[in-house]
Formats: sequence, structure tokens, C-alpha cells
Amino acid sequence: MVQAPWLPSLITATPREGFALAVTLSQKGVATTQLDVEFRRAQRPEYAEDADSLVTVSHVIATHFQTIVAANDYWRE
Amino acid sequence: MVQAPWLPSLITATPREGFALAVTLSQKGVATTQLDVEFRRAQRPEYAEDADSLVTVSHVIATHFQTIVAANDYWRE
Amino acid sequence: MVQAPWLPSLITATPREGFALAVTLSQKGVATTQLDVEFRRAQRPEYAEDADSLVTVSHVIATHFQTIVAANDYWRE
Amino acid sequence: MVQAPWLPSLITATPREGFALAVTLSQKGVATTQLDVEFRRAQRPEYAEDADSLVTVSHVIATHFQTIVAANDYWRE
Amino acid sequence: MVQAPWLPSLITATPREGFALAVTLSQKGVATTQLDVEFRRAQRPEYAEDADSLVTVSHVIATHFQTIVAANDYWRE
Amino acid sequence: MVQAPWLPSLITATPREGFALAVTLSQKGVATTQLDVEFRRAQRPEYAEDADSLVTVSHVIATHFQTIVAANDYWRE
Repeated sequence: MVQAPWLPSLITATPREGFALAVTLSQKGVATTQLDVEFRRAQRPEYAEDADSLVTVSHVIATHFQTIVAANDYWRE
Repeated sequence: MVQAPWLPSLITATPREGFALAVTLSQKGVATTQLDVEFRRAQRPEYAEDADSLVTVSHVIATHFQTIVAANDYWRE
Repeated sequence: MVQAPWLPSLITATPREGFALAVTLSQKGVATTQLDVEFRRAQRPEYAEDADSLVTVSHVIATHFQTIVAANDYWRE
Repeated sequence: MVQAPWLPSLITATPREGFALAVTLSQKGVATTQLDVEFRRAQRPEYAEDADSLVTVSHVIATHFQTIVAANDYWRE
Repeated sequence: MVQAPWLPSLITATPREGFALAVTLSQKGVATTQLDVEFRRAQRPEYAEDADSLVTVSHVIATHFQTIVAANDYWRE
Repeated sequence: MVQAPWLPSLITATPREGFALAVTLSQKGVATTQLDVEFRRAQRPEYAEDADSLVTVSHVIATHFQTIVAANDYWRE
């Protein structure tokens, strides 16, 4: 089981913070598979410079954002 | 945390503007991973000329559009 | 912002027209990234002849179709 | 606009027929991009024999099936 | 049309059985494209030993599981 | 049919535990295809060191997380 002091809630004050949370969740998904922090630091430049990987990261963010948006009931009132 | 003066709301007046917002979000997803603006400018032509990447970008837009469409309750009345 | 005289509505009379709209949206997603019409015309045969890309295009259409189907409340009644 | 005498409805009598419709929709998505029937016939063996493409086809079917299942309200009563 | 004596219902008694059904559906999606059983038997070891394909299979299962979970109303009560 | 003493429920106490369950489900999806535990152990370092596969694993987790979040009604009260 992953036990980390993050993600206390899916609720955010604004869409912008919701998007930032989606970015965090997408990075966490990579982190749970590759636990070696040093290795990930070394590799991030790799997928940050590969067009295909960058676009796929953007897709993961989109999926998490969809979840967060629903959790916040679209920040309607 | 990403802090940017964008995305005040998911609400748009028309489906067309909703689609444009989906495009913006898909680009933002790339931007959060690759922060170097110069690098992205140099790279965009690369994935804009690769058939596979272009189709995947279109998929990311589709996912964000789905979110935005729901947020706007399909622009029904 | 993309400003184009398309996509006045997500509502279509039939499932068939809804599917056609999903195809249009998937192509528009490619168009927003690659603005050069001549280039796209030249490239379309490329991904239209690559098995992997064809299948991925079909996935993008599936995602847009899901959105459109919900917008039309499944064309029930 | 795609105009074909298919897809009169998303409603099917059973989950099994719903899955078959999802398969049809996934194939139609390929067909709208590659209009040359002869070419597609020649190519189908190609992606039917490539492990990666086969799995991606299965993903497209899964997305369409999700849509159809919702349209049929899960065939509950 | 695919006609097979499988998938009588999307309802399962437990989440665990729901996950098993998602696995079955993902395999069926491959089967509808590649009808030659002998060929699939020969190929399965191939994508079962390729890291990329394994992860994509896992994604297809995730999509079907999402469908089945909704069909079973999350097995709440 | 997969029969394993896991996944008694989709309900978790917190978002954090929900995310951990999503990670477990994504790994289970790989396990159902590649049953040889020794083989998977040997291969995991492979996709844990490949940027593309890591990002795709993160996408699978995102899809399962979406399911779990809905099952838990967003952990709203």
C-alpha cells in the first residue's frame, strides 16, 4: 500500500488548482512504479524532451482533471 | 503547484469556445512537464509533423472536450 | 483561440449524424495542432496507411462519439 | 459528412449484441479515415497480426462498449 | 455480427468477479479482430512478454472494469 | 475466471487509499495476462525504466482512480 501525506482531498478552490492537482496525480502515478527518486530525476528530462511522451503525459493529466472536475461539481457555485 | 492566470472557469458560451478551451488545456498539459518555453517552441513543429503524435494530441483534446462539455451541461438552454 | 464557423451544436438528429460529427471533431483536433492545410493534406495519406495510426484515429472518434451520445441523451425519444 | 445506412440505433436487446455493435463502430472508425475498401482489406491482416495493434483495437471496442452499455441503461430490466 | 454464448449479463456478485469479467471482455476484443484461435494462442506469449503491450492490456481491462463497476452500481448494498 | 482473495470492495476511507487501490488494480491487470510471477518480477524493472511505459502505467492508474473515486462518491461526507 502506498502511504504518503499527500492527497487529503480532491476538492480545490478553483479550476486552476484542480488542474495543478491533476498534474500532481499524474506524476504520482509514475512515482508509484518507479520508486527510485534519483532515477526519476534523471529520467524526467528524457520524457520531457520526447514529443510522444510529452503528449501522453498530457493525456494522463486530462484523465485526472476529468475526475477532479467531477469531484468539484465543476466549481458551479 | 502550478500557478497561472489562466482557466478562470470551465464555462464557455458556445461548443466552439469549449473546443478551443480543450485545445488550450491539452497544450497546458504539455507545458507543465516541459517548462522551457524555448524548447517547446522548437519541439512543437516536431510533433506537429509526426502523424502518430498529431493523432494522440487529438485524443487529449477529445478527453478535455468531454470534461468541458459536461461542465457546460451540453450547452442545452 | 480557435475561431471557426463550425460546431454550432452537439445535437444531431440521429446516431449516424452523431458519429459523423465525432469524425469531424477528431479531424479538427489534428487541424488545431497542424495549421498548415497543405501539409495535412500531404500527411493524411500517411496515417491513413499506417495500421497503428488508423486504429488510434478510431479511438479518438470513439471518445468524441461518447461525448456526443451523452449530449443527445442517447437519442431516446 | 459520413452517410451510411448503418447505426439506426444504439439500443440492442442484449449485452452480447451491444458488444457486437461496439466492434462494428470500432471498424467504422477505421473506415472513415481509410476510405479505400481494397486497401483496408489488404491491411486488416497486418494489424490483426501485430500484437500492439490488436490490443489497441480492443481498447477502442472497450470505449464504444462503454457508450453502448450506458445507452442501454445496462440492460437492467 | 459476433454471436457467442458468452456475456449473458454485466451483473456480477462481487468486485472480484467484475474484474474477471473485464479481463474476459478485453480478451474478447482481441478475439473479434483476430479470429484464428491458433494464431492468437501463438501470439499471446508475444504480448505477454512485451512490457508495453502488457501495460496496454491493463488499460483495456481498466476501461471495461469502469463499465462493469457502473453496471453493478459499485456493488453498494 | 480469475479467483483471488483481493478486492473485497471498492470503498476506501480516504482519497489516498483510493489511489493506492488504483495502483493495485493496474498491477493486477498486468498480472492476469502474464501469470508467471518470476517473469513479471524480472520484467518490472524493464518498464519501470522506460519513460514511455512509465507514463502509460500512470494512465492506467488514472483510469482506475476515476472508477474508485466515483465508487466512493468523491469521499464527500
